[in-house]
Amino acid sequence: MRGRRAAVAVILAGGEGRRFWPVSTPEVPKQFLRLFGNRSLLQETVERLKGLIPEDRILVATSENHAATILCHLPALPAENIITEPMPRNTAAGAALSALHIRRRFGDVPVAVLPSDHWIGDPAGFRTALGRALSHCRTFAGLITFGVRPTRPETGYGYIEVGPEAENGFHRVVRFIEKPGPEEARMLSASGAHLWNTGMFVWRNEVFLSELRTHQPAMARAFSALFPQLGSEEYPRRLRDTFQRLEPVSLDHGVMERSRNLRVLPVDFEWDDVGSWAALARHLEPDRDGNIVLGEGAVVVGCRNCVVYSQGQTVGVVAARDLVVAAAKSGILVAPLERSGDIKGMLDALGAARRPQRKQGPPSPTGAASGGCR
Amino acid sequence: MRGRRAAVAVILAGGEGRRFWPVSTPEVPKQFLRLFGNRSLLQETVERLKGLIPEDRILVATSENHAATILCHLPALPAENIITEPMPRNTAAGAALSALHIRRRFGDVPVAVLPSDHWIGDPAGFRTALGRALSHCRTFAGLITFGVRPTRPETGYGYIEVGPEAENGFHRVVRFIEKPGPEEARMLSASGAHLWNTGMFVWRNEVFLSELRTHQPAMARAFSALFPQLGSEEYPRRLRDTFQRLEPVSLDHGVMERSRNLRVLPVDFEWDDVGSWAALARHLEPDRDGNIVLGEGAVVVGCRNCVVYSQGQTVGVVAARDLVVAAAKSGILVAPLERSGDIKGMLDALGAARRPQRKQGPPSPTGAASGGCR
Repeated sequence: MRGRRAAVAVILAGGEGRRFWPVSTPEVPKQFLRLFGNRSLLQETVERLKGLIPEDRILVATSENHAATILCHLPALPAENIITEPMPRNTAAGAALSALHIRRRFGDVPVAVLPSDHWIGDPAGFRTALGRALSHCRTFAGLITFGVRPTRPETGYGYIEVGPEAENGFHRVVRFIEKPGPEEARMLSASGAHLWNTGMFVWRNEVFLSELRTHQPAMARAFSALFPQLGSEEYPRRLRDTFQRLEPVSLDHGVMERSRNLRVLPVDFEWDDVGSWAALARHLEPDRDGNIVLGEGAVVVGCRNCVVYSQGQTVGVVAARDLVVAAAKSGILVAPLERSGDIKGMLDALGAARRPQRKQGPPSPTGAASGGCR
Repeated sequence: MRGRRAAVAVILAGGEGRRFWPVSTPEVPKQFLRLFGNRSLLQETVERLKGLIPEDRILVATSENHAATILCHLPALPAENIITEPMPRNTAAGAALSALHIRRRFGDVPVAVLPSDHWIGDPAGFRTALGRALSHCRTFAGLITFGVRPTRPETGYGYIEVGPEAENGFHRVVRFIEKPGPEEARMLSASGAHLWNTGMFVWRNEVFLSELRTHQPAMARAFSALFPQLGSEEYPRRLRDTFQRLEPVSLDHGVMERSRNLRVLPVDFEWDDVGSWAALARHLEPDRDGNIVLGEGAVVVGCRNCVVYSQGQTVGVVAARDLVVAAAKSGILVAPLERSGDIKGMLDALGAARRPQRKQGPPSPTGAASGGCR
């Protein structure tokens, strides 16, 4: 697959770091955390592509203030492969901007668009599936997504209703289903016809740009106008102007759900979007009481099924059940494990309560580096 | 009651600060905390005696390293009224040492021995009861204790089985009962014949010393030998030698439970030994969801009946029930409120886990002062 038409990967690393608070923060979002071992989720994402896409063909779309941390995590990445977004405008903008750079540098190649902060239990299985999709998009002029067979009635994921097989294991998509309530999640996860929407996509670069023109014409026009500026002195200013005027929209809502040229590849590898602390309980080995205790200085006594995380803080948890307790420099979170994904309201309340102390503007490089590259 | 025979109070302030961890610590034990308002529990204890015992007749028995903090909390206290214990030997030793100083400075006066870290809801009622006991001990040659009528099946207190009335509302004591299990606590608290043992005592000084000779002869001999040294240059060294050889024993176990000359005064004022975080939930006004949130930086969302304490740390608690979350410089505690008294095992485990970082020796004066006198 090497040569002019070899595939390119775009890793979307623009996460805002609210899901894993207090360990993740706007300065050190989730993709920089080493939640499952010695590598950060971002490093794992690149590692998983080994043998399929070399690092010089991996682009990382991220915000300006994370560029240094990205290079610190990925020292072999060419600096020009970091596609910086001047302000957050959600995933469609990141993918569209990356597509411009790909057009200029690589041409109409197969592209894999991948989140930077997911967990995958079977990297070989993932590579096989991704390889199949990258091959398929050479002949299929549409957008390909990956659907994971549900293993639990998860309310934190969107679902894809699978249609009949179209080609070679690739299926039509009947519809995308938003994150369901508990009742609907039970139904969807048991139906056999619904898969988890992984947010991983494959397409040919020009096919994506064409779909973008159809479903996000304003965004497509803005980026078309930006294309001739790539590499020019004017580029940073024009990029900022372009982003300033964009409506934020996700790839899912803005493009995938509107497209009529879709395929889903049902896959069997274990996958998790690591959307809350409960994910740690799913993928790390608990002690015999079901507890997962991470970091120095944490002690649990008489607890069951708790996740306790400490960044050096002394933490004592007594007689608790099904609880997450996470302590970091930014703060302390305590919540039932099954509710650990519902912390947005609390973070808003904290933000309001602590407005005067809230950190504004770009973070100190030390903060980002120490969070990411220790 | 003034003059030669006016009463003296001994406040026992030797607490080790484990019950209210992480806010209380060996350096800043519970008596120095301002849990219920602007005054520390120690300051409240002295304040409650106003009009009954003047500050120059209040002795405070404490460890050497807390003397400065005591004076910081009680600036009107004469420095010589601090009776320092060179090492912890439990409450009998503190009371016995104080009795020597009282004999020398005040003679055979009525003495009230009071914990430094309890909560009392009705200070006037307390003063009335204490005044009655201080009067009664002028004629009754025995040990007087106060029994509070139980209002719940508390397992954290000892109980006193009340006998028939002996004189003027003062009753005989049938027996002392150790902290009961839940079943026994339900029985005791409903019987009508059992009172909570408050650990507050009244006696004439020489009566106590006589009871000490009977029930703790070794301790009594050791202190008798020390008596001539009071005020001498030799005193500190001899005091240390004496304490080194003492067997630690509490006033309750070592003297009260062995004595045959006992009275209990049933009292009705609200009293709490503030033995765990659950005490805050009993005596502070909760919000409409039953939560008590103390300190800057703590936010609760969707919680019920939680106590959340922060010393400036950012704390977010989501969807929790009946939980205490306490954050301080020393660490973070998470436990069900009803189990918040059972943290000893966890502290031992933490101590073992963190041995290398454990603070040894006397604390920094800043630490003690800032914890006590801010």
